[in-house]
Amino acid sequence: MRQENVRVSIWGFGAMGGGIAEVLLRKKGVDIVGVCDIHPDRVGKSIFEVLGVPRGARRDVVISGDIDQVVTRGSADVVILATDSFTRKAFDKIKLIVERGINVISTAEEMAYPKAKEPALAEELDRLAKANGVSILGTGINPGLMMDLLVILMTGACTDVDYIKAERVNSLSPFGPAVMEEQGVGLTPEEFKAQSASGHLAGHVGFNESVNMICDAIGWKLDKPVEQSMAPIVSNVLRKTKYAEVKPGNVAGCTMLGFGTVGGKLAVEMVHPQQIEPELEGTDTGDYVVIKGTPNVNLSNKPEVPGGIGTIAMCINMIPQVINARPGLFTMIDLPVPRAIMGDMREQIHQ
Amino acid sequence: MRQENVRVSIWGFGAMGGGIAEVLLRKKGVDIVGVCDIHPDRVGKSIFEVLGVPRGARRDVVISGDIDQVVTRGSADVVILATDSFTRKAFDKIKLIVERGINVISTAEEMAYPKAKEPALAEELDRLAKANGVSILGTGINPGLMMDLLVILMTGACTDVDYIKAERVNSLSPFGPAVMEEQGVGLTPEEFKAQSASGHLAGHVGFNESVNMICDAIGWKLDKPVEQSMAPIVSNVLRKTKYAEVKPGNVAGCTMLGFGTVGGKLAVEMVHPQQIEPELEGTDTGDYVVIKGTPNVNLSNKPEVPGGIGTIAMCINMIPQVINARPGLFTMIDLPVPRAIMGDMREQIHQ
Repeated sequence: MRQENVRVSIWGFGAMGGGIAEVLLRKKGVDIVGVCDIHPDRVGKSIFEVLGVPRGARRDVVISGDIDQVVTRGSADVVILATDSFTRKAFDKIKLIVERGINVISTAEEMAYPKAKEPALAEELDRLAKANGVSILGTGINPGLMMDLLVILMTGACTDVDYIKAERVNSLSPFGPAVMEEQGVGLTPEEFKAQSASGHLAGHVGFNESVNMICDAIGWKLDKPVEQSMAPIVSNVLRKTKYAEVKPGNVAGCTMLGFGTVGGKLAVEMVHPQQIEPELEGTDTGDYVVIKGTPNVNLSNKPEVPGGIGTIAMCINMIPQVINARPGLFTMIDLPVPRAIMGDMREQIHQ
Repeated sequence: MRQENVRVSIWGFGAMGGGIAEVLLRKKGVDIVGVCDIHPDRVGKSIFEVLGVPRGARRDVVISGDIDQVVTRGSADVVILATDSFTRKAFDKIKLIVERGINVISTAEEMAYPKAKEPALAEELDRLAKANGVSILGTGINPGLMMDLLVILMTGACTDVDYIKAERVNSLSPFGPAVMEEQGVGLTPEEFKAQSASGHLAGHVGFNESVNMICDAIGWKLDKPVEQSMAPIVSNVLRKTKYAEVKPGNVAGCTMLGFGTVGGKLAVEMVHPQQIEPELEGTDTGDYVVIKGTPNVNLSNKPEVPGGIGTIAMCINMIPQVINARPGLFTMIDLPVPRAIMGDMREQIHQ
């Protein structure tokens, strides 16, 4: 077993980056060695103060607004980048880390399968990683696990696959104002329609990534780019959370559908309704995988794996695999499966 | 993409080996180049005759009883060994293949995690594989996926795990006389008790492998070896299949339980009742994974992935990963996830 603890730096200390830090502080064999965040409420503060976690005997880590102070050659084994959703936006940050010789785990949804939307950038990232002897991975709960890697794993039990449906019915109740805005929660149906048409509603980012990951993994060639649609979930009742209030007749969330066709047939279907307080109208949350093939698969996980904690877990649990990987850009289908780390993280490192 | 088709030889042409061949014949980019089997009904016959599959334009493959004729240096990319359940029995065969410079996939249940029962042999296999520049993998549906790799994958969504239960409720109805005998189907309860006590009933082989795989993957140290128990499933009704008849009051199958304790607490529980015609008494078959942790996981797959076709699929679907692996002995937690192969198998080979 290696002597020194695994060293992790975190770039972006919002809900994800902060949540990752909080869990890492409870894990054995790993230290947080640096944090970069530009939010004025956080710069210059101790991560223990920001997280409300007693520091104990640990070395203090002060949040820096200057990435050049945090990410220097040899300063960490891996940087977790938790700042963006899109490859194009994360690219320069990943490049900076890689060129300083450090492995990267990105929470950006598009980075879960970057060649789906940004093939040229993905190629460049792979080249940079190899040139600098490090590895890059994008991961998260979705994309990254529930609507893609889990599906792919289950096809491993099949000799033949004809059709795949991945469905994720989840609750947005725990999320804050940013997510409410992205999903259109609280809007009137007319406002939803207008904002959707103007591209203001992000909805779920990931269908392109999940569908392409599945098809490449099992050897299906898509006839055309993944198609998707977005529709409001109009509530019949009053729904309230800490951050949102939805009057009857207004929008409680957003259903996204995605379609991949292969050989002229609908081959991969994605169904992902996200809303606050789904149980108020009898909607059971859960993750579902249907595979029509030999044999059929009919998987469900109820209730759903929550998005926030699930993404935090995936980013932490893939640290050993990213350190162990040979240089290059990887996706979840290239590396050994994620697993909880209940022992000393150093035991999972091969070098 | 590599030019030549992937070349597979099969050692053991019973239900598994024959089933693997039948599926491989439908796949693109892969050829069966040799088959060894010692059963007098099969030696000297064409695999197409034995399988009842039209040969078409394919090169004929005649089943040989002499492994030295089938497995020669450079004759195949991988040999699928489908002859044994136990590492000790498969060892010499794996050694022979490896020393001729060919990768091995073994269906032996113990080979799914050989260090659980045979740590010295596992170490020797790893040494042999590295010395000969090839890789070795044991796989199957269980052990190999439903009660271990799937469980481990789902812990990947967890920051913390307290307790794990894997349950597999399956039907033995499709199986032949050998399985009926191993599981005690058709015996009186007294006969079951006597045969169980004398070690005549194999039951399920795999709890040691699955529990150790899970614990090593997530970093739990078992307090003591895995404990297991075996009990008859006594039928209240008449149950009949092609190969078995169970009178009311007699044994329709066998429930195996397995327990792994960590830090003085029951940490991993395995529940695996196998019987013919379970639906006659209202038993729903399925695969179930319960994880108590952060978050909880409550997964089910109904009905269960069938054992025979599932194992056939796993052996075929892992061929590219075994060819791509660096030299050594591997288990399912070391390699990228299994996936159906619906395209040309050569596209999945990296070299």
